[in-house]
Amino acid sequence: MVRDTRERVLAAALAEFAEQGYQGASIEDIAARAGLTKGAVYYYFSDKDDLAADLHAELWERLGRDANARFDPAASALENLKRVLRAFLASLEDHAEARFFLRDCWAVPALVIAGRREVETGVALVRFLLVEGMARGELAVLDPEAAARVLLGAFTEATLHILTTGDAEATVEVVERMIDALAAPGSATRRHQSRGVVTR
Amino acid sequence: MVRDTRERVLAAALAEFAEQGYQGASIEDIAARAGLTKGAVYYYFSDKDDLAADLHAELWERLGRDANARFDPAASALENLKRVLRAFLASLEDHAEARFFLRDCWAVPALVIAGRREVETGVALVRFLLVEGMARGELAVLDPEAAARVLLGAFTEATLHILTTGDAEATVEVVERMIDALAAPGSATRRHQSRGVVTR
Repeated sequence: MVRDTRERVLAAALAEFAEQGYQGASIEDIAARAGLTKGAVYYYFSDKDDLAADLHAELWERLGRDANARFDPAASALENLKRVLRAFLASLEDHAEARFFLRDCWAVPALVIAGRREVETGVALVRFLLVEGMARGELAVLDPEAAARVLLGAFTEATLHILTTGDAEATVEVVERMIDALAAPGSATRRHQSRGVVTR
Repeated sequence: MVRDTRERVLAAALAEFAEQGYQGASIEDIAARAGLTKGAVYYYFSDKDDLAADLHAELWERLGRDANARFDPAASALENLKRVLRAFLASLEDHAEARFFLRDCWAVPALVIAGRREVETGVALVRFLLVEGMARGELAVLDPEAAARVLLGAFTEATLHILTTGDAEATVEVVERMIDALAAPGSATRRHQSRGVVTR
């Protein structure tokens, strides 16, 4: 029951943020949408930043679960990196309100620090894929920590760009090209990829 | 004279931020370091966020100038993209205090919005290089807006990683590989680049 109320507040907050923007949303409106008093909201959350931080953490947790679910141990490292990218994008497209929220979250002070912390989970997953791919000779030997961070930076900007413009296909093409750039020279995967290059 | 005083305040603020961190620095200490009263500091800046925002804007302006100065109209698009990347990194390495500041600036609320706005200048420069390179047949035809944003995301994460670890060489290698991935298939630049691939 307690859990239900807390979830109701979170769902109402997400809907208010999506409709009003983070700055425009008020605890009063969030409480009204959830059918609760302001006092009930403050029982679970100290302020709007606190609510936003919890929503943000839940979103990242779901993104991590979705990415892990798409991992295929039988696929190549390049293929798995592309699966992670697509899981990231699909998970957001399935949640229209979360799209709005993720786009605006950089304006929420409480999330700037939290956001960088959550990113570490993503770095660890991508680094794992890179180290495995290098060990199997599928990927060029590069600093895996540096490569993971640079790739995550590319993923994040790609995501923000897609959420802003809706142009997923052209953006995914750019990121997949950068993923393919990590192939070991002369590897079967690289030859295969070269045949598939789009030359419009 | 007025300009000198304002610059003195900015230099003192940068030094304090570098030594104490943004949260730990006070207007009082900044004034003392500049040899001024608190009132004199408040004559130019409304608060610490305002000071930080001005420093940040100056830093980006210098980065933009440095990147433009390295642009070589006779060089290939790939070479110019690498020059922009190196200008970005060199400009920061020349300013030890700015390095500290850029690393921590995401904790300053006033800079989160400003930071994203300044990024637009960088996007415009990189997009220009991409469009030119595509027109000359040196680069694969991709969505230039998407490619510029994804590259800037990679540059930014690379910069933060280098400022954190000091490991410039391995990180630059990753980003340059991603830049090379933008070459048009079969272009001379691409063949040249393939010979140079590091396979440690």
